[in-house]
Amino acid sequence: MAEKTRSKIVSIKGARQPVTSYDVARHAGVSQSAVSRCFKPGASVSKKMRDRVMKAAEELGYEPNAIARSLISGRSNLVAIMISNLTNLYYPEVLAELTQRFSEHGVRVLLFALRSEADANETLQQIWPYRVDGVIAAAELSPEQVGEFEKRDVPLVFYNRHLTGSPVSSVCCDQEDGARQLVDGLFKAGHRRFAIIAGPPESVVGVERKTAAIERIEELGADDPPILEGDYSYESGFALAEELMKHKKKRPDAVICANDVMAIGALDAFRVNHGLNAPEDISVVGFDGVGPSHWKSYNLTTIRQPVRRMTEAAVTMLMAMIEEPGLPNEKRVFSGIFQAGGSAQFETGN
Amino acid sequence: MAEKTRSKIVSIKGARQPVTSYDVARHAGVSQSAVSRCFKPGASVSKKMRDRVMKAAEELGYEPNAIARSLISGRSNLVAIMISNLTNLYYPEVLAELTQRFSEHGVRVLLFALRSEADANETLQQIWPYRVDGVIAAAELSPEQVGEFEKRDVPLVFYNRHLTGSPVSSVCCDQEDGARQLVDGLFKAGHRRFAIIAGPPESVVGVERKTAAIERIEELGADDPPILEGDYSYESGFALAEELMKHKKKRPDAVICANDVMAIGALDAFRVNHGLNAPEDISVVGFDGVGPSHWKSYNLTTIRQPVRRMTEAAVTMLMAMIEEPGLPNEKRVFSGIFQAGGSAQFETGN
Repeated sequence: MAEKTRSKIVSIKGARQPVTSYDVARHAGVSQSAVSRCFKPGASVSKKMRDRVMKAAEELGYEPNAIARSLISGRSNLVAIMISNLTNLYYPEVLAELTQRFSEHGVRVLLFALRSEADANETLQQIWPYRVDGVIAAAELSPEQVGEFEKRDVPLVFYNRHLTGSPVSSVCCDQEDGARQLVDGLFKAGHRRFAIIAGPPESVVGVERKTAAIERIEELGADDPPILEGDYSYESGFALAEELMKHKKKRPDAVICANDVMAIGALDAFRVNHGLNAPEDISVVGFDGVGPSHWKSYNLTTIRQPVRRMTEAAVTMLMAMIEEPGLPNEKRVFSGIFQAGGSAQFETGN
Repeated sequence: MAEKTRSKIVSIKGARQPVTSYDVARHAGVSQSAVSRCFKPGASVSKKMRDRVMKAAEELGYEPNAIARSLISGRSNLVAIMISNLTNLYYPEVLAELTQRFSEHGVRVLLFALRSEADANETLQQIWPYRVDGVIAAAELSPEQVGEFEKRDVPLVFYNRHLTGSPVSSVCCDQEDGARQLVDGLFKAGHRRFAIIAGPPESVVGVERKTAAIERIEELGADDPPILEGDYSYESGFALAEELMKHKKKRPDAVICANDVMAIGALDAFRVNHGLNAPEDISVVGFDGVGPSHWKSYNLTTIRQPVRRMTEAAVTMLMAMIEEPGLPNEKRVFSGIFQAGGSAQFETGN
C-alpha cells in the first residue's frame, strides 16, 4: 500500500515512475519480502538470493527509499545529535566518533549545532517532525525538555553531562575524580596557593570540576582559591590569567583550568606577558586531553577523556534503548586518564 | 491519502492512533490545506489563521510528520554534508556554519563523516536512500561519483574543492592567489631559500597551493625549493621540519606550509628542538586562519579563508539549485585574507 501511495504521488509531480521493490521481485522471480530483506541492514538472506535480487535491482535501477520504509517500519533509522560549542576543540573528535559508530549500525545522523544553550527549545521543535529513533544530547536540557522526550517515547542519552536529580541515561567522564587527582598531584609537588579558572556557571560539567577542586583544596588545608569564570575559550583563559597577575602579593603558584583551551590561554598569558614559564615559575593544568594539549609549546598536564570508550558506550546504549523499548535508564561514568605533561610541577602516587 | 496510509501503518504497530492534520482541521474548523500551510516553513498564512490552527494543534497534541510530508512534496528538506578530516581544526567551524545556515532555511543536515577519502562510495550508497534534496561535499569525489548525482538529479556543491575539468558547482578559496601572496611577501622581505611542506598528493587543495607556490618561486628566480609531503597534521609538520634541518648547509630560511596546523608543528620543531625562533631565525607561514593560528605562542602569518562568506555562498547556491532545478552550474572563488602574524619576516604592498 505504501508503494502504491508513493507511485501515485510521484506521478502527480510528473517525475518518471520510480522502480518499486515489486518490480524488482517480478524481474528476479522472487517475493517482494525477499527483496525487502536484501535491502535491510543485518537481515538474514542467502548469498544466492542476494545476488539474484541485486542483479535485478541493478538492471532496473532500483534503489530503496529509506523514507518510505520508515513509514512502514516505524523506524526512521535516524538519530539526532544535539551539540553545543561545536567549535570547541573537544567536540569534533566526539562528533566524528559518534557519526562513524552510528553508521556501523546502519543509522544516520541528523546534526543540530546549537549556537547557545538557549537554542535547545527551538532545536527540539526541529527534531520532532523527523521522527528520529533516538537522540544524543551533548547540550544542556531542562527537566521540561527531558519531559518532552518521555511524552514521545524518544530515547535520550546525555553525552558528558547529566541532568541533576533525573534518571535520564548518560555517559560521562568522572569530572570529580579528575579534578581531585589534579589537586592531589599539585599539592604533593608542594603547591599551596591555588587558583581556579572555571567554566561558565551554566555548564554542569564545569561546575562539577570546579566544586570538586575547591572541596579537595579545602580538605587538604590549603587556602581558599580565587575563582574566576571563563567561557572555555583561549581568549578567556588568557584574560583571566592576566586578572590573576594583578594581585602580585597573592599570586597563585598553581592554576587549575576547567578545560585545556583555557589552560593554553593562561600559559600564553603567563609566558608572553609576564615571562613566567611553566612548570618552573608557575604550574597550570587543564582538562579534556584535546589534540593541542600535546603541542610542544604547551605540553599540558591534564586529564584526558576516554573519547573512544565514551562514544562507543553512548552509541551502544542508545541503540539498545531503540531496539528494546522500556529498558531501564543507565548512567555510565568513565574515569579520565591522567596525561603527564610538562606544564606543572606534579607528583602522582602515594 | 498519505495520512490514511500512515494511520493504518501505525495501528499495525499497536501504538496509539496519531493525531492527523485532518483532525486538527476539523477541531479548528478550517480546511486541511490551511493546517498544512501553517506548518510549512515560509508559507503564506494570516496571523489569525495561524493562531487558530496552532491552538487546535496544541489541544490535540498534533505534530507534523516531516517524513510523511516529504513523500507528498517530493522534498525531504534534508541535505547531506559529506566531510572528511572532521577532526582537522579547520572543519568544525565550517560544519557549524553550514548547519546553522541550513537550519535558517528550514532544512536539516544529515552528517557523513568520512574516515578517509576512500569511504566516498560507501557513503553515497548510504545517502541515496534518504532522498536528500542536495549534497555539500567537503570531500573528494571521482567523475564517476559525480555522475551518480547527475543520474539522480541530486544537486551537488563542492566546498573548498572542485573536480578538475568538471563544471560541477563549487565554492572555493583562491588557493593560487593565496600561495602567491605568501611567496611574494617572503621574497620582498629578503628570503631566497624556500622550502615547502605540502599536503597529501590526493588533496586537490593542497596540490593547488603547492603548485602555485613553486611557480611563483620560479618566476621570482629563487632556487627550486625542497618539497616534503605531510598529511595536514601537527605531527607531520613537526617531523618534516626535522627533516629539513638534516641538511644544515642548505637549511631553508622560509618554510611555506599547506595548512596552519602543519605550520604550528614546524614552528615547534624549530624552536623546541633547534632553538630557532620565528621570525628572527626562520620564517614559517601557513594557510587557513584556524583559531589556534592566533594563539600567542604561534601568532601565524597566514591566509585566512573567509569561512562565513564561503559557507553562506555554498548554502545559498545549493538552496537555489534545489528550488530551481536546471539552474546552470556556478563556481565561486573567494580571495583569502592575509593575516599578518609574527611567524615570518614578511613585506606586503609594492
